[in-house]
Parts: sequence; structure tokens; C-alpha cells
Amino acid sequence: MESIRIIDIVGTAAFSIAGVSAAMEKKLDIFGIFIIAFVTALGGGTLRDILVGKVPIGWLSDLSSGLIVLLSTIATIFFKSVIKNYHNALLFFDSIGLGFFTVVGIQTGISFELHPVGCIALGTITACFGGVIRDISLSNIPLIFEKEIYATTSIFGGVVFFLLMKMGAPKMLFEVVCLVSIVILRLLSVRYHWQLPTIWKPEKS
Amino acid sequence: MESIRIIDIVGTAAFSIAGVSAAMEKKLDIFGIFIIAFVTALGGGTLRDILVGKVPIGWLSDLSSGLIVLLSTIATIFFKSVIKNYHNALLFFDSIGLGFFTVVGIQTGISFELHPVGCIALGTITACFGGVIRDISLSNIPLIFEKEIYATTSIFGGVVFFLLMKMGAPKMLFEVVCLVSIVILRLLSVRYHWQLPTIWKPEKS
Amino acid sequence: MESIRIIDIVGTAAFSIAGVSAAMEKKLDIFGIFIIAFVTALGGGTLRDILVGKVPIGWLSDLSSGLIVLLSTIATIFFKSVIKNYHNALLFFDSIGLGFFTVVGIQTGISFELHPVGCIALGTITACFGGVIRDISLSNIPLIFEKEIYATTSIFGGVVFFLLMKMGAPKMLFEVVCLVSIVILRLLSVRYHWQLPTIWKPEKS
Repeated sequence: MESIRIIDIVGTAAFSIAGVSAAMEKKLDIFGIFIIAFVTALGGGTLRDILVGKVPIGWLSDLSSGLIVLLSTIATIFFKSVIKNYHNALLFFDSIGLGFFTVVGIQTGISFELHPVGCIALGTITACFGGVIRDISLSNIPLIFEKEIYATTSIFGGVVFFLLMKMGAPKMLFEVVCLVSIVILRLLSVRYHWQLPTIWKPEKS
Repeated sequence: MESIRIIDIVGTAAFSIAGVSAAMEKKLDIFGIFIIAFVTALGGGTLRDILVGKVPIGWLSDLSSGLIVLLSTIATIFFKSVIKNYHNALLFFDSIGLGFFTVVGIQTGISFELHPVGCIALGTITACFGGVIRDISLSNIPLIFEKEIYATTSIFGGVVFFLLMKMGAPKMLFEVVCLVSIVILRLLSVRYHWQLPTIWKPEKS
Repeated sequence: MESIRIIDIVGTAAFSIAGVSAAMEKKLDIFGIFIIAFVTALGGGTLRDILVGKVPIGWLSDLSSGLIVLLSTIATIFFKSVIKNYHNALLFFDSIGLGFFTVVGIQTGISFELHPVGCIALGTITACFGGVIRDISLSNIPLIFEKEIYATTSIFGGVVFFLLMKMGAPKMLFEVVCLVSIVILRLLSVRYHWQLPTIWKPEKS
């Protein structure tokens, strides 16, 4: 259980840092930066809980997630030049967040006895829609709609999850394999610049 | 009942196609296009269900709506040059969607014993706010806030609905009349370029 | 109780007028202006109720809030040149709205037995996030993320609320002191151009 907690913290912190970076580009004040970090890290899970009706939303009572966002925000603001140098570490932590939140979202779907496709949708919403709300809040077109194989990685992990489940694998196994396969696919897709097809001719840039 | 199912499919497909077109203008990748189509077709109903607390949201368990969106998206991407030529048919189907989703939203309100004005608000939200969420997601100002008599048509249909109900008309009748009157008003307003008044002097364009 | 009702009306009207002004800048039609006024005045409370699961949302059944928004919208459209001259009165009413909605949000949190920090978050969401949804809908970056000490004032009032509560003050007292201290801090911060620190060097402008 302790390791799950650590993975949760690592993922939340990585998502918060991504939020802080996006908010800084738009020159928000410190309140705005914190809200964008919060939305990036916890917005996907919040949307998931609203869609299934798991209310009052957890972070209103359990302050630990909000605290991680706050500490990550403060750390990023103070040490941004240092953190910038750990680009690869951040990508790795972000991938862990992507995998972990996908698994958490799928588990929520299962606990509400949803169809596997609905569960995978919840996993993707949990992992990816914090970033979507962040981008919309900052008047950007959501990054994951444009050019990265980000959400698709989460969906892929969800399919792996249910394939292993149907094959009768033990719960622990398909959760771990789902998370690990998302991390690996994410890192590979960044390394080799994989993208989803678009329908337009690529422009030279 | 079968005819209701067909109207639902027609409306969902027409809304999805409108979503795909808007997403293509912003050059999203295929995942982004699907999500925008999904939001356009099902976002209004999702917001309605969140506002009344009808959760878990239906499309998490019943995959048929999502499947219609998926098929419409694929068809639109592959046959976009063909579909473009059916502008009038699309407008007609879109009007049917506007009318049908208004009726569905009103019925939800009635089942929660809301005030008629609240029911009409839910009808308009169901029919129009998928497009609003789509436009906001794409960093556009929502189209229906700017220049078309779109939402007003839905409200008009809702008023017709409750007027007939108060007059003691049979349920089937005022549902059909509501839907048909929305379709007719929508087609007329497009044909004759009806608009809501704005408060500014019109610019020459 | 009567005085509470009047404060509620004053706050809702002031928020609506702020919404109408923002919508007019973007040259929306009258439907769009009303929706933006509605979202500005009632969007924060709606988000609060969704987060705690207090559904169906109140304004679907109780039409009084919607009516205040409607009347404020009409009045602002017809008398905008007059209203513009009452800038200080509007600021005062807006401050009252900020304080009142903060108290209402905190009370909702208490009734759901949330942690004080969760209650203060709900207070701030109630008072400030209508404006956030308005700004996002109009493709603006939310004003309160950028340069005003607006949300912070609401948070400050929330802290005052719980400090007095812990000290055993009577309920009526800490509600009134919370509201009044928010109004005073808000007026002072506008008068003396207080801002939250940003992390960038200020540009000359």
C-alpha cells in the first residue's frame, strides 16, 4: 500500500509541475499558478467523480492531494531553473502519473460496475482531462487533441488491463502491467516522435 | 419506440458531424476530432444529467451513443468531400437533433418534477450546450452566443411544449409538435437569415 | 432573514452586471449576454453544488435567482450609459457579493461536514468561479488568475470565519465579520492597487 501512496504522490507532483510551467508561460500570478497546477493534477479525477456521482469530491475532505499540489507549486516556482534541467526525470514521473491515474480511473469504473469501455474512458479522463481543463482555462487548444499520442497511450493501457483480466490474471498483475506498459509506450512515443495521423498534409516547419 | 430510436441516431450523427467539421478546421488529430464530436453530440446531455444528478452518466454504461459518434466521425473523415455536398440534408438532420434533444431534456426535467422554466432550461442545455462546450474547447466564442437564433428556437419549442400540455393535449401530441415546430423554425431562420438583435450598430461586411 | 435576502439580491445583481459588461465587450447577441450574466452570477454556486452533490441544482426549481439575473441584464442593456457612471456603487455591490457568496459557500461546506480548508475552498469557488467560467467562455484568461487580489480576499475572509469560530464567537458574529472584512479588504485593495506577487519582472507600461 505504501508503494501505491508513493506512486500517487509522484504522479500528482509531476502533473502539478506541468501545470505550473503552463501557467508561468501565461504570466499568471501565484494564485492563478496554484489553481492551474491544482486543476492539472486533480481536474481529471474530479471530472471522473462528477461523471459517476462520487461526491462530495474527495479533495474537499482529504487535504493530502491539495497539499502535494501546493508544495510542488512552491518548489517549482522557487527552483524552476533547477527543475528545468531534469527534463527526463519529469517526463518519467509524468509517465508514471499517466499510468497510475489510468489504473485509478479504471478501478473507479469497475467499482461502479460499468462496461469495460466505460471504465477505459474513465481511466483516460482521470489521466488526461486535467491537462485538457488546464489548456482550455489558459485559452489554449488542448495539447492532447493536437499532436501527441498521449491519451491513446492511456487507452492502450486500459485495453491491456482488460485483456489480462479476461485471461484470468491476478488483479495485482494486470494493474502493474497496465501501468508499466503505459510508461514504456509513453517514453517510446516521446523518444521516437510517434504521433497520431492527421488528415492534412504535413506542412514544412 | 423504434421511430424514437431512429430520430435519436439521426440527431446524434448530425451533431457529431458538426463537431468533426469544427475540429477539422482547427487541424486536430484523429483522437481530438473524436473527442470534439463526442462532446458536441453528448456534452449537452451530460451537463443536463450532472445538473440534476442523474449519475453515473448514461454513456459510461450504454455504449450505443458513443458508437454512433465513432461511426459518424469515421464516416465524416473518410467522406468529407461527399458529405460537404449534402449541406441541406445536414441542416435538416441537425434541426431534428435540436428538436429531439430539446424534448428529451424537457422530459428529464419533468421526471425530476422541476418548474416548467427549469425544464425548458434543461431542454435548451441538452440541445445547445454540447456545441457550447465544443466551441469553448476549441478556443472559439460559442457560436450560439453571437449570431444565430439557435438556442432561442429550442426555448420557443419548450414554450410550445408546455402551452400544449397546459391545454390538456395528449403527451404524444405536444412532444411531436414541439419537435416539428423547432425543425420548422430552425429551417426558416436559416433560410431567411433571422438573427437575435444585438445592441451594436451592424458593421458593413 | 429579510436582510440576508436583500444582500443575496444585491450580490447576484452586481455579478450579473459584471457579466453583461464582459459579454458586451465581445459583442454577443442578447441570448449570449443573458447566459454570460447567468454564468457569472450563478456559475460559482452551481460548481459548488456539483462538487458536493447537492442536486438537482437549486436554480432549476427556484426561479428567483434566474429572475434577478434576467432583470439585471435587461436593466444593464437599457441603461448602460447610466450604470457606467455608478462605478463606485457597482464596486461596492460587487464586494458585497464577494463576501456574501463566500459565506454561503463556507456554510455549504459546513453542512456537508467538510474540513475547514475544504469549506474555504467552497467559499472561494462560490464567490469567484462564476467569473472564471465567464472568462473561459469568452476565450479570455480568467481575470482572477492574472492580476487582482480577488480570490485571495475571499480566502482571507474564510480564514477570519474559522478563526472566530474556533474562538467560540457566536455564529451570527463570525458570518458578519467575514462578510464585512471581505468588503473592506476588497475596497482597500482596489483603492491602493494591491496585487499578488508575480514571478516576472514587471514591465513598464
